[in-house]
Amino acid sequence: MRAHLPAKKSQGPAMPECLVFRVPTRHPADVSGLDALFASGALAPEEVVAVFGKTEGNGCVNDFTRPLAVMALEAALGARVALVMSGGTEGGLSPHLLVVARREGAGGPGTALAVGTAFTDDFLPEEIGRMAQVRATAAAVARAMAAAGLTDPADVHFVQVKCPLLTSARIQEAAARGQDVSTHDTYASMGLSRGASALGIGLALGEIPGEALDDSVIGTRPDLFSGRASASAGIELMRNEVIVLGNAPGWSGPLRIAHRVMRDGIDLPAIQGALAELGLPASGQLPPEAAERVVALLAKAEPTGDGLIRGRRHIMNDDSDINATRHARALVGGVAAAAIGRTDLFVSGGAEHQGPDGGGPVAVIARMNG
Amino acid sequence: MRAHLPAKKSQGPAMPECLVFRVPTRHPADVSGLDALFASGALAPEEVVAVFGKTEGNGCVNDFTRPLAVMALEAALGARVALVMSGGTEGGLSPHLLVVARREGAGGPGTALAVGTAFTDDFLPEEIGRMAQVRATAAAVARAMAAAGLTDPADVHFVQVKCPLLTSARIQEAAARGQDVSTHDTYASMGLSRGASALGIGLALGEIPGEALDDSVIGTRPDLFSGRASASAGIELMRNEVIVLGNAPGWSGPLRIAHRVMRDGIDLPAIQGALAELGLPASGQLPPEAAERVVALLAKAEPTGDGLIRGRRHIMNDDSDINATRHARALVGGVAAAAIGRTDLFVSGGAEHQGPDGGGPVAVIARMNG
Amino acid sequence: MRAHLPAKKSQGPAMPECLVFRVPTRHPADVSGLDALFASGALAPEEVVAVFGKTEGNGCVNDFTRPLAVMALEAALGARVALVMSGGTEGGLSPHLLVVARREGAGGPGTALAVGTAFTDDFLPEEIGRMAQVRATAAAVARAMAAAGLTDPADVHFVQVKCPLLTSARIQEAAARGQDVSTHDTYASMGLSRGASALGIGLALGEIPGEALDDSVIGTRPDLFSGRASASAGIELMRNEVIVLGNAPGWSGPLRIAHRVMRDGIDLPAIQGALAELGLPASGQLPPEAAERVVALLAKAEPTGDGLIRGRRHIMNDDSDINATRHARALVGGVAAAAIGRTDLFVSGGAEHQGPDGGGPVAVIARMNG
Amino acid sequence: MRAHLPAKKSQGPAMPECLVFRVPTRHPADVSGLDALFASGALAPEEVVAVFGKTEGNGCVNDFTRPLAVMALEAALGARVALVMSGGTEGGLSPHLLVVARREGAGGPGTALAVGTAFTDDFLPEEIGRMAQVRATAAAVARAMAAAGLTDPADVHFVQVKCPLLTSARIQEAAARGQDVSTHDTYASMGLSRGASALGIGLALGEIPGEALDDSVIGTRPDLFSGRASASAGIELMRNEVIVLGNAPGWSGPLRIAHRVMRDGIDLPAIQGALAELGLPASGQLPPEAAERVVALLAKAEPTGDGLIRGRRHIMNDDSDINATRHARALVGGVAAAAIGRTDLFVSGGAEHQGPDGGGPVAVIARMNG
Repeated sequence: MRAHLPAKKSQGPAMPECLVFRVPTRHPADVSGLDALFASGALAPEEVVAVFGKTEGNGCVNDFTRPLAVMALEAALGARVALVMSGGTEGGLSPHLLVVARREGAGGPGTALAVGTAFTDDFLPEEIGRMAQVRATAAAVARAMAAAGLTDPADVHFVQVKCPLLTSARIQEAAARGQDVSTHDTYASMGLSRGASALGIGLALGEIPGEALDDSVIGTRPDLFSGRASASAGIELMRNEVIVLGNAPGWSGPLRIAHRVMRDGIDLPAIQGALAELGLPASGQLPPEAAERVVALLAKAEPTGDGLIRGRRHIMNDDSDINATRHARALVGGVAAAAIGRTDLFVSGGAEHQGPDGGGPVAVIARMNG
Repeated sequence: MRAHLPAKKSQGPAMPECLVFRVPTRHPADVSGLDALFASGALAPEEVVAVFGKTEGNGCVNDFTRPLAVMALEAALGARVALVMSGGTEGGLSPHLLVVARREGAGGPGTALAVGTAFTDDFLPEEIGRMAQVRATAAAVARAMAAAGLTDPADVHFVQVKCPLLTSARIQEAAARGQDVSTHDTYASMGLSRGASALGIGLALGEIPGEALDDSVIGTRPDLFSGRASASAGIELMRNEVIVLGNAPGWSGPLRIAHRVMRDGIDLPAIQGALAELGLPASGQLPPEAAERVVALLAKAEPTGDGLIRGRRHIMNDDSDINATRHARALVGGVAAAAIGRTDLFVSGGAEHQGPDGGGPVAVIARMNG
Repeated sequence: MRAHLPAKKSQGPAMPECLVFRVPTRHPADVSGLDALFASGALAPEEVVAVFGKTEGNGCVNDFTRPLAVMALEAALGARVALVMSGGTEGGLSPHLLVVARREGAGGPGTALAVGTAFTDDFLPEEIGRMAQVRATAAAVARAMAAAGLTDPADVHFVQVKCPLLTSARIQEAAARGQDVSTHDTYASMGLSRGASALGIGLALGEIPGEALDDSVIGTRPDLFSGRASASAGIELMRNEVIVLGNAPGWSGPLRIAHRVMRDGIDLPAIQGALAELGLPASGQLPPEAAERVVALLAKAEPTGDGLIRGRRHIMNDDSDINATRHARALVGGVAAAAIGRTDLFVSGGAEHQGPDGGGPVAVIARMNG
Repeated sequence: MRAHLPAKKSQGPAMPECLVFRVPTRHPADVSGLDALFASGALAPEEVVAVFGKTEGNGCVNDFTRPLAVMALEAALGARVALVMSGGTEGGLSPHLLVVARREGAGGPGTALAVGTAFTDDFLPEEIGRMAQVRATAAAVARAMAAAGLTDPADVHFVQVKCPLLTSARIQEAAARGQDVSTHDTYASMGLSRGASALGIGLALGEIPGEALDDSVIGTRPDLFSGRASASAGIELMRNEVIVLGNAPGWSGPLRIAHRVMRDGIDLPAIQGALAELGLPASGQLPPEAAERVVALLAKAEPTGDGLIRGRRHIMNDDSDINATRHARALVGGVAAAAIGRTDLFVSGGAEHQGPDGGGPVAVIARMNG
């Protein structure tokens, strides 16, 4: 297990700044916007610590837009950077990258957006969706918080995990070693992997007591959740990659983060609450100048288990043509775009143990005025 | 061609009332909610003049949830009623029926929600998507307005048309008679049929001059549009069925209608403008008591032709797994649910010549206080 | 629980004949071909005992082509007839009805195609996919065999069951009564319901010993299977409907049935074995005159659990855009059309406990020469 | 425009051999099988002239499995090699690579499998699906034939072209230069590009007279076709890449190729005709030892325009959930697997001007017994 970035060096008097660039993509392998950032001098490749990407695949088992984007980004950035590719831009969502960088240097005292990353070791197929994944994730969150100088869990506003899934080949490989996996349904494995990762985050942040957790609660106890966890499953990796975002003392720059928990997929007031906390106008849609100050919106989406939203039936769970997570991303994407007035938003599907059933965390990163 | 309902009788001193009931459905053939309405005495079957239904199919060529709902509703109501089944409840939209009724009777003087219906004759396959459909639709709109007592086009706020589409069998039938159809792509035929219907509405309402219209503009000139037209194509009929809604003098009851034109799929302010016109609080999401006063929201959704929303790329037009109209309905459904706080909204796909490119009309029917 | 048709009367000197008519459909509600059969005098409505239909839906949870066809057929035939609508005509399969009739009357001694039907009671949601469904199915198979005069299980060549599935609403209904269902995944419930039904058939035919069966083997023990079972799940019913087909003494007419077990989805030799048993040329594709003698081909299709066909990877189980059963139907439909030279074949998906893993029964009904 | 490989050198006494290796893939970026071939010494990277790949995407506009495979193969092989990635392994088709190599060296006199490649220049968006593409393709076919030493068009058995498609971005780019493209429907552009490429092949092989061709026939005159053309469209390139396969004098080795034209999607006898020409048993399914001798089957699949196969309705053209080419590939894949007894077959969709309407060329490469 290796921690990301030499965090020790950054704990000194140098005041780090966390920068976030939003870069549109023309296709999953498009890194021309990233290259342009580097060419302009606005950002140096070695400053990049993480990239969040929305790619235009189905976000499900056979979504190869994620490995394609990863292959292109690794060619541009090396294997050093945490890459969180989230497939699925249903509805009006716009494919884009969020490039998160850490710059050492000057800045006034105070509190600002901070980032830290860490990786687990590769998991065995039979560890996915089980306590081994929960515990390894919690340990990685703690390392990432330390790297960001975040000592109080209350200052953490969003924890993103990229986690693996099971494929037929991986299930066979485990079976060949006499091991049974948590599920034989490859699509279901994505939910269990996300769920175990989210429980690990909740454990690390003190939202969920350790004694409440065992293999049997993963995927079955929606009342156990983190309000700041976001997990995306992908075929392109076998370990968990963790990115912690918060407001930390000792960081500089104009960016701040706030979060709320959406109680369901149409919880516009939750989004507007986060906007208000950042000093943005929170009635109706943001006017264009305010929308420009929003650097990123990160949200989770999932269908409710009971097939209802505020008592009215939705069809996500009964649709055999379009997976339920695809419907959920489209819905939350529409609600968030209604609030922000733009569509390049990081809405990711599958919110098992990430917020309440049918809801999920939403975080906003904005540029402060002044 | 037959006009719907003996409108002559209703022009006398009796003050008609237009009632709208929203009825959830458990599946496309579910008429148990409608039966319960009748059993309760709240509504008599012979008062029903139209039913709008959102069903849970794909809203495209092979959406058989529409004929299934029509079969069930005709068994319950007879063939007399205009039925507008619109397939597609993507995202969080909730399948439901809007039962529109006309009740003769007492009421104070003033202006209230009014409804009128009319049907064209059956079209030949080669007439679909061409001027024959435009002109027949315009004539039917005029008849429906007369039936509703709507003399000023400015008092018309929403015109719904249910129109046919081409199938391989219908194209073959025309070919056997030596006739070529407007398109050989069955999915594309839905757009041409909706477009021709919308141009007919715009012609009838004076929004589009007759001399601007010929076969070649149908589907190719997005600048020609009606701001109050809504057209849904379905496999289950060969004629156009027209329902006109407006606020007319001589009608009674607490319901009023307002509309706006959404300039794109995320135009929350347009929806909030219509809400404000009806006296509803229009900042943030409607509180539950105000949401209860909204009897219906009717909106159109479509992808932009240039693949952008406010300059940012969407993937609707390049997705070969999910049709573009399905993405568009999910998006507008999310935006509308953000405003209203409920998901049983009539968002219908394919807005050719219905509002500007990528946008569309939105109408709200609400119960006035007092 | 009611047995179908008064079988006692038919055991007398009158020699019944089982007739099978293949009727193409233009859409799921199309009964014009059936009406034409009746109008021609070739068949009387009261002679019909069962209809097998391939409809063009997705064959999964939200396939409403099945209830649409059922609604149309019940209007034409009454509720008396066993209706087995199987959704899914992927690849080149052609939507059609197989109308199975029983005609009392003259005929020489000997053995010919025989049919019997029976229904179970409606199941509770929590009984679906469990031993209650297994046992009720076995009892219904025994009643249907008796109705057909089939006393030796070896003379039974195909048993079709139409069985229910779970929806979100049905799961909620059970939960409201404090009952948990066999699965909360509505798509998975189709497999469990088919599996339980197939085990019931295998139990009735003596292919599977009763002591091998309990709730835990349903869906998990592919080595337990019937070689003559075919089960289709649909949203439109809550009971199992059973149709037994065999060659029975005391029946007359030119039709005979034969079956084989396909060991995988590309087992052309199995199909050719059944053809050869019926005296048809079994090398290459049937020439047109022989293809005309084939009145029906009935087959089951499913993906292998290990993701391989003869050691080569298929992608059915990892495809989140198209359900695995849809791929499997398309594959087996292609293999069967290669053999028969026509595409109006009854290939139905989901072969849990119906033949070996990835394979399934195939039966052919043909007209004997002479 | 650059011809592939220095063909001049190979015209000398050295007797070239065309080798074909079939390599299974575990995912679109999997080149481990190719690496193993190189590591084993069976093949040298510089001998590879072309790779045909079946990848597991949807084969339509947003199929990113093709560029992913290309990125992985270019990393392994360099940009020198013609890469034909064809998306879509519906039904039971198995993702795999066909690695085509040319080895200089010894060998007896006679005739054997030969290969030649050539590329066009990049096309402008407005050239796609028009005569510019037809003519450039014909010129490239001639160059590729020369490179293979194929002087008689009758010795050419299969010509594969990989060709580009239009995306929203490409259409916009052309519009910005004042140029209109052949179609604004991105999915339709794949068909026009394949069609223009196939007509270019037919022109080069003398199957279609040049005077029959102009822009208007592309995609509209199914009677104009090549019986040996195969074209696949992909988002990952803007030029046409041409690979010619035939039996040429002066080549050595045990491989031979034969082809037939399938008259429709279920034309098993056409496949069996090609097998028979290669000395393989052509009744029923190939036994395992004969199936091993089949090194590759290459076929094209498409739906019939009239919605019928031998007079029976298919639903490919009316299915808005699954694209018609996906159904067609699944069907032809099933028919071909019935013949060969294996599923790693190169069945590619969209056969515009490639064989008759609804049919297409099929070629088999087999190892001769010796």
